[in-house]
Parts: sequence; structure tokens; C-alpha cells
Amino acid sequence: MAKILTVLYPDPVDGYPPRYAREEIPVISGYPGGQTAPTPRSIGFRPGELVGCVSGELGLRPFLEERGHTLVVTSDKEGPDSVLERELPDAEVVISQPFWPAYLTPDRIRRAPHLKLSITAGIGSDHVDLPSAIEHDVTVTEVTYSNSISVSEHAVMQILALVRNYLPSHEWVTARRGWHVADSVSRSYDLEGMNVGVFGAGRIGMAVLRRLKPFDVELHYNDVHRVPPDLEQELGLIWHADARSLAAAVDVLSIHAPLHAQTVNLFDDEMLATMKRGSYLVNTARALIVDRDAVVRALERGHLAGYAGDVWYPEPPEEDHPWRGMPHEGMTPHVSGSTLSAQARYAAGVREILECWFDNRPIRQEYLIVEGGRLAGTGAHSYTV
Amino acid sequence: MAKILTVLYPDPVDGYPPRYAREEIPVISGYPGGQTAPTPRSIGFRPGELVGCVSGELGLRPFLEERGHTLVVTSDKEGPDSVLERELPDAEVVISQPFWPAYLTPDRIRRAPHLKLSITAGIGSDHVDLPSAIEHDVTVTEVTYSNSISVSEHAVMQILALVRNYLPSHEWVTARRGWHVADSVSRSYDLEGMNVGVFGAGRIGMAVLRRLKPFDVELHYNDVHRVPPDLEQELGLIWHADARSLAAAVDVLSIHAPLHAQTVNLFDDEMLATMKRGSYLVNTARALIVDRDAVVRALERGHLAGYAGDVWYPEPPEEDHPWRGMPHEGMTPHVSGSTLSAQARYAAGVREILECWFDNRPIRQEYLIVEGGRLAGTGAHSYTV
Repeated sequence: MAKILTVLYPDPVDGYPPRYAREEIPVISGYPGGQTAPTPRSIGFRPGELVGCVSGELGLRPFLEERGHTLVVTSDKEGPDSVLERELPDAEVVISQPFWPAYLTPDRIRRAPHLKLSITAGIGSDHVDLPSAIEHDVTVTEVTYSNSISVSEHAVMQILALVRNYLPSHEWVTARRGWHVADSVSRSYDLEGMNVGVFGAGRIGMAVLRRLKPFDVELHYNDVHRVPPDLEQELGLIWHADARSLAAAVDVLSIHAPLHAQTVNLFDDEMLATMKRGSYLVNTARALIVDRDAVVRALERGHLAGYAGDVWYPEPPEEDHPWRGMPHEGMTPHVSGSTLSAQARYAAGVREILECWFDNRPIRQEYLIVEGGRLAGTGAHSYTV
Repeated sequence: MAKILTVLYPDPVDGYPPRYAREEIPVISGYPGGQTAPTPRSIGFRPGELVGCVSGELGLRPFLEERGHTLVVTSDKEGPDSVLERELPDAEVVISQPFWPAYLTPDRIRRAPHLKLSITAGIGSDHVDLPSAIEHDVTVTEVTYSNSISVSEHAVMQILALVRNYLPSHEWVTARRGWHVADSVSRSYDLEGMNVGVFGAGRIGMAVLRRLKPFDVELHYNDVHRVPPDLEQELGLIWHADARSLAAAVDVLSIHAPLHAQTVNLFDDEMLATMKRGSYLVNTARALIVDRDAVVRALERGHLAGYAGDVWYPEPPEEDHPWRGMPHEGMTPHVSGSTLSAQARYAAGVREILECWFDNRPIRQEYLIVEGGRLAGTGAHSYTV
């Protein structure tokens, strides 16, 4: 019988469950390209419920306890006395979300001798030290594609919000109770006709490009893999050989690359300086891909016209993190991949992975990052160690 | 020599000109369907400048004064002592914007014996009493299509912002300095798979539908004119015979109809009750198409999950207008059609109309609403009297 340690974000301040805005969510059975949505034998929640917080438990408790396993769910993940630290030594499985990451450092993995499986309830396993997982034969998985479309919608929304100056306009007419059209529009532009690029044209980046196509913009991208020529032609994509060339060419740049040695701190002062004055930068990928203070400097001197991000470092960020108060920002607290719609899919995917794990059936190739002491599966394509 | 009375919104609070975020705007030479962007012989501004406010003067002063005309520009438009009232009696031309409308009521038109031409710097001439204009042989014009794409972008942005709960999420991480993922996402959904409809499938409504197509939603519409079958098929549009059928079918409804006798107050308590619980309503058309207080009631009891609008009545709205503080709103102060990008086009269109007027050349058919004492031109298709 196994202990499953699940680290989730805290409940809503007004308690659980919340009053839901809607009765149901659309049924999404597959993704572009043909991968099916998760196919667990059963789920322990109603799609549309808030399962990503502590009381939501990803809907796993009845399933695990019926089988005699122990489920520990906590949001207490930092410091030596945290529940995470206390429970880790005899946990077999650790489940965590990118939105409230349980950082599995080399030190923590060393102090978890029973740890065999790490599941990311979502996408992005950069909070897990992959070399240590390989060394200690920990299988690392994530629910590939479960929230890629969610994130792509968020990026398009944040692009439009920055370019059109949505948040300040909203504030003028609500909190400030004014009618300041000139103040609202003096930084407001149409997206139409602009050059828009994605850094990283994987599942999310491509979904962003597809969604932007009818806005009559010029679409650019840079990726280590060039997309097929027919797709380049269909969307009118302009390929760039490196991030620098992309950055210099566009008015709007949206980051959709994983965090690894080649992307960490890539958007530093120098890279930002190659962008045109008045460019917009959107980052729903990982915070460490950009230099935190370089972004603030670029906004303050007016070189960047706006920065909207959904990702921070660390998460949660400190109360005085400079991105909370910098000018021309459109930040969110890592929510893009944790809509109620996304939660239904990644919770079902976690259930699918656990069913396979405990029934000794193979986990889907596309969910695997590390298995058998090496990078494995199609999920690992985004990672290097 | 003529007096041209131009009513524009006030300058920014920090003075004119603002510090611009960007050096330039993309060149847009035409619109979907083949209409060209405005073709004045010259313009008196740099595209991307704030010309929609009083000091911006739509860039008209040198042009008009060189020809010996008198240009009066003001934002003072209400009450018997307003500049509008004082200058109206000997004005030949009145120029006004929907974002700061000079309401040309029957009474005002009666007291303007020299008035021959009304120009809307933008689209939508519902602030002009058309029967009175017809009776007094006032030519009524607007700059058709100049900001239609601008408004369509705004509507898509507001749809995404409501469905994904953008504004509260932003506030949690900035003003409130928290990391409340559960509170942010407990009302956050993906747009994917939802049923989205437009009421009014003219230039703006069709542009909204086109932009939403790659979001993998079901698209619905109602319009007095059914769109061609090949276009219905291309976008997978579901047609509804009336607004009620549309309202009952969709999760998100975006209003893109002009204000006239058939649309005024259409979305009242009864119509809102036909919508599903948890629906979203977006209105970038005209405020009077919805019942102000019915919207507030529907939001407060949770029947509507969100309302985002760009239009108010009157404009400016009173400081205690209930839409400023109602729950789950995403309001803006009528800015969607007045981006700096849109201003460049409608200011050029006003210039084109004035050049034609003073040179005795015909004004483009598509700009005409009333001419020669009757509804005229292709621009009039949206209007009834």
C-alpha cells in the first residue's frame, strides 16, 4: 500500500466549494493532431468542479482509499517543518501542480527513498530535478496537452489586453469612476497589421498562431524544430533561425518554450534591447526564461510597451515582487492552465496515470518524461538534462 | 466661409500630447470585402497620434483655416451654456464622435438653421435624430468601416476576459498582492467548445465570428440578413431566426447591432431569462440595446456569469452609474472604436468627407446616411426612421 503525497494550492478564502458560475463545461474528447483527452476508467469528480485546490483533492480520495492507499493532500510545501518535508520520506508518489509547485530538488529526492513516481497535474516538470530523478529511478510524468489550449487562449487574451490597453481603461471607468477616453486610448492600438511572433511553436505556440491568424497579423516563430512547409504556408508563418532574429522582427512576442538550460534567462537586457521600442512581451511559459529586473527596467524606460505574464518565480512570489507593481503590466497568478476546464482534464489524466501505475499497465508514452532511469516517452521531447 | 463645430472628448489629464507607447501604426489600406480605407488628398496629422481629443482636433485646423473656414473644437456639449449650444446656431458642419456624442436632438437641429452636414468621426449616428435631419435637409455621414475591426478585436478580448476571469485574477496578484489561484480560477473557464453567438452579423459581427473560428467553438448568429450559404458553411455558422432563439442557444452572446426601434431595450429581464444560467453578455454596440438594471439584476443573482460592455448611456455616464460597480463586469469607457489605429482612419475619413463637401465632389456612397432629405447611400442600410 502506497502513500500518495499531493501538493495543491490552498482553498478559496471564502471556503470550499465555491459557488460555481456555470453548471457544466463543454466535453472535449481530443486534441489537435489526434491525441485523445485522458481516458481513466472512472473519475471521482464532476467536470467543472474546483478540484485543483486542497479540498478538491483532484477527486482522488475514494479511488485511492478503496484500494488501501494513503492520500495526503497539503498546500504546505516550503521550509523544514512543512507537511511536504514531513511526509516526503515515505511517499511513493508525489503529485504537484505548476501553479503551486512542490520543488523536487536533488536534496529532497535524496531524502525520499520510497519515491517512485512524480506526476505533474498539468504540464511542465521543471520543478522536478530530472538528473536526480534519473539517478534515483523516479518515473516523471505529466498530463501532456491537458491544458495547452487553455494556455493558448490566455496568451491571446493577454496580447489583446496589452495592445488595446484594457486594464487601465477598465480601471478608469470602474475604480476611478471617470470617463477618461483620451487617457484610456492614448496607449491603445489595434492588433491588426502588427507583427506577432511566438518563441516556441509546440502545442501551445501553434495554437496561439492558429488563433491569431484571422486577426490579419504577420505571424513569426522561432523553434528548434521547423514546422512542416504546408503548415508554414497555410498560416503564412515567417520562420526565424534564432530568438534574437524573432525578437527584432516583431511588435508582439509570446513565449511558449519550456524552461531548460538553453532558455533560462534568455530574455535579458541585451535581448530586450533588440526588440523594437513599443513592443509587447507575453510570457505564459516559465518566469525564469526572462530576466525579472530587466523586464521592469524595459517597462520603466518605455522600451517595452507592456508585459503580461502568468508565471512567476518563485511561486508564490514574495509580496513585494516587482512585477506586482510595475507599469503597463497585465499579470495573472499562474491561472492560465488551471481553468475549471483544464482541471477536469488534468485531474482525469492524473487518475489515468495512477490507474496504470497501480494496475501495472503502461503509462501512455506521451505522458512520460523520465522512466527506467532515462529520458523516455514522447513527453520528454521538450526536456534536456 | 463655413463654421465647423467639432465636439471631441477632453484631453488627457496629464496634458497633450501624451508620451506615445509606439512610434508608428501598421498601414491598413483596405477592409474585408474590398472597400478602401479613407482616401483624403492629404492629412494634417501623423498616423498614431491622439487626434480624437480636443487638442488633437482630428488634425483639421490647418486644412480648414487655409480655406478661410472657422474651426471650433470643444468637449463642452451639455446644458444651455455649453459651447455646443452657443456655437450651434451658425454652424454649417457638426463633427462628433460616438465616444463623446453631441446629441443632435430635434430641438437642437431646429435651432441650427445653417446646419447642412453632420459627420460622425467613427460609426453609428444614433446620436443624430434622423427624422429631423431629413426634415431640415441635413446631410448625415459617418466613416463606415473605419473602426469596425477595432471593435471586433475588443469584443473578442472582452469575451476571453469574462470567460477566463481575467480582471479578478489580475487584481488578486497586483492590487491585493496575493497568490490566490483557487479564488482566481473558481470562475475561470476555457472558451473552447462553448457556443458563442453574435446578435448582428454585419461588418463587426462577421469579423468577430471569423476571429473566434479557430477557438474551436460553435458559432451562432442572428441577423435580419442571412449571410451567404458558402460563408455559413466555411465558418460553420448556425443561424437563428430571432434574437430569442439565439439567446437561448449560446454560452456567450456578443451584440453587434445598431440601435433603432427594433433593438432598443431588446435585452430586458425576459430576454435575459431565456439565456442559460452562467452565460456571458458582451456589448460593444450601444448601451440602450440592453436594459441597464436588468443586466445588474441578472449579474447579482448569478444568472449572467459576466457582462462586459464598452458602451453606456448617457456618455459620459453619471458617477454612480450601477455598471461601474456591479459584480463580474469587464467594462471600458467606449474606447473600442477609438484606438490610435482607429483614430487615424476616422480622422482621415472626416478629412475626405470635408474635402468632398467643400470641393463639391460627391461623398462616398458608403459614408452617407441621410442626403437630400432622405435615407441615402449604402451606409443607411443599418438605419430605419
